[in-house]
Amino acid sequence: MVKGNTMSGSTIGGFLIDLDGVLYTADAAIPGAQETIRFLVEEKIPFRCVSNSTRKSRASIATKLAALGFEIPESSIFSPPLAAVRYMDEAGKHRAFLLVTDDAGRDFAGICTDDGSTNVDYVIVGDAGDKVTYASMNHAFRCLMEGADLIALERDRYWMDKDGLSLSAGPFVAALETATGKTATVVGKPSKEFFGLALRNMGLFAENVVMIGDDILTDIGGAQGAGMRGALVRTGKFREEAVRAAPVIPAWIINSIADIRNIL
Amino acid sequence: MVKGNTMSGSTIGGFLIDLDGVLYTADAAIPGAQETIRFLVEEKIPFRCVSNSTRKSRASIATKLAALGFEIPESSIFSPPLAAVRYMDEAGKHRAFLLVTDDAGRDFAGICTDDGSTNVDYVIVGDAGDKVTYASMNHAFRCLMEGADLIALERDRYWMDKDGLSLSAGPFVAALETATGKTATVVGKPSKEFFGLALRNMGLFAENVVMIGDDILTDIGGAQGAGMRGALVRTGKFREEAVRAAPVIPAWIINSIADIRNIL
Repeated sequence: MVKGNTMSGSTIGGFLIDLDGVLYTADAAIPGAQETIRFLVEEKIPFRCVSNSTRKSRASIATKLAALGFEIPESSIFSPPLAAVRYMDEAGKHRAFLLVTDDAGRDFAGICTDDGSTNVDYVIVGDAGDKVTYASMNHAFRCLMEGADLIALERDRYWMDKDGLSLSAGPFVAALETATGKTATVVGKPSKEFFGLALRNMGLFAENVVMIGDDILTDIGGAQGAGMRGALVRTGKFREEAVRAAPVIPAWIINSIADIRNIL
Repeated sequence: MVKGNTMSGSTIGGFLIDLDGVLYTADAAIPGAQETIRFLVEEKIPFRCVSNSTRKSRASIATKLAALGFEIPESSIFSPPLAAVRYMDEAGKHRAFLLVTDDAGRDFAGICTDDGSTNVDYVIVGDAGDKVTYASMNHAFRCLMEGADLIALERDRYWMDKDGLSLSAGPFVAALETATGKTATVVGKPSKEFFGLALRNMGLFAENVVMIGDDILTDIGGAQGAGMRGALVRTGKFREEAVRAAPVIPAWIINSIADIRNIL
């Protein structure tokens, strides 16, 4: 069933797969990506999708994937809000001020968020889009000054929206760090805990899992730092210069996820 | 007329005076401050007010001062927008995207600001209050990515508003620096150029001028770095611990501006 690849070390038992840039870009599937997912399902090779997208809920991501022709259940999608909720569960603290989109807020069911108080355990910052205002940033700031800890769903600097480069969560996280002197805990990629959530869900050891991504640092560096091997695709945000400049060497570089069979 | 003070070095020929915390706090004049200003005017001892406030225009600051019983003309008030306009004049570049309050925007007459383009020379960030939105931050970001330089009117972290601590310009400047990799030029205190504007306007050398302020770093450190002597007041944001922790020793520490005669 699963073909062992002893040339590259341990047997490959499953995959973690980035979404944007690996399965699709903007609103189009990467050629061959749907067939690859179908192949993994048919061959019963386990995989989970790990995305740093924090604008959409898992349900919305699953809906988008279905519209693009991918049969991937919501339960296979791991995004930073899930990691944040897990983080809070482990700490036994559940009061938070969320600086995230309304859609991403749907992944925080069970978290106490709406009493408007500054007396919370965490301030959680994602790529919140128009939820960023002076008032929301100031409320986050006051929560932090009154003792809350800062959780960053991700701290990317920017991303390519349809109308141009757009700020992601990172700059606003930096603003709150500057204002308060606190340091954010990042729960999305490249944190080991985030990869660990998906690995445990598959029941596989890191050494038997390959991460497929288009970001040399967040995807490949993060995964290899967590004990997996990484396969960098030449789609999405892939840039030859970024690969040369990075202090990371991917186990594989492949043209696209359609070449996944070259790894197995 | 001007009493020379040879005990402390050079003759004192004039003063730079901080506003918030020195002449007033919140909406009340510091006891004795009005009389001190009246004394300086009567004795013909020149002074200029140097404020890092970037929410209000010079005209609005003058109006507030008048309401509090201070007879100080607008032309004696130096705030960071004036320094920013001077900075742009010297560079011969006048297209800017302003992330400032509407009131502060009044001090940017002659600066080309309203065509909505990202093709500008400067992004200018003050304590913009509700002008901070995702859209305005993203527009600032895009201007910077397309070649604009970043000017910070000030980069304080926060200030004490009536309803609690509130974010100042610094954190949003840091957000834009993080997003773009650019470094802001600060034109307000403690920049030497800012103090220099007020000194030149008085026609005095730095060594003959004393800066009176409540911030050990921005006011006293900045002024002493620019060649003046500093007198720290025990009003406003003065805190004994901050003085002990600071790498700056004020030439004088006085109870309030009412004690200015002890310096002369």
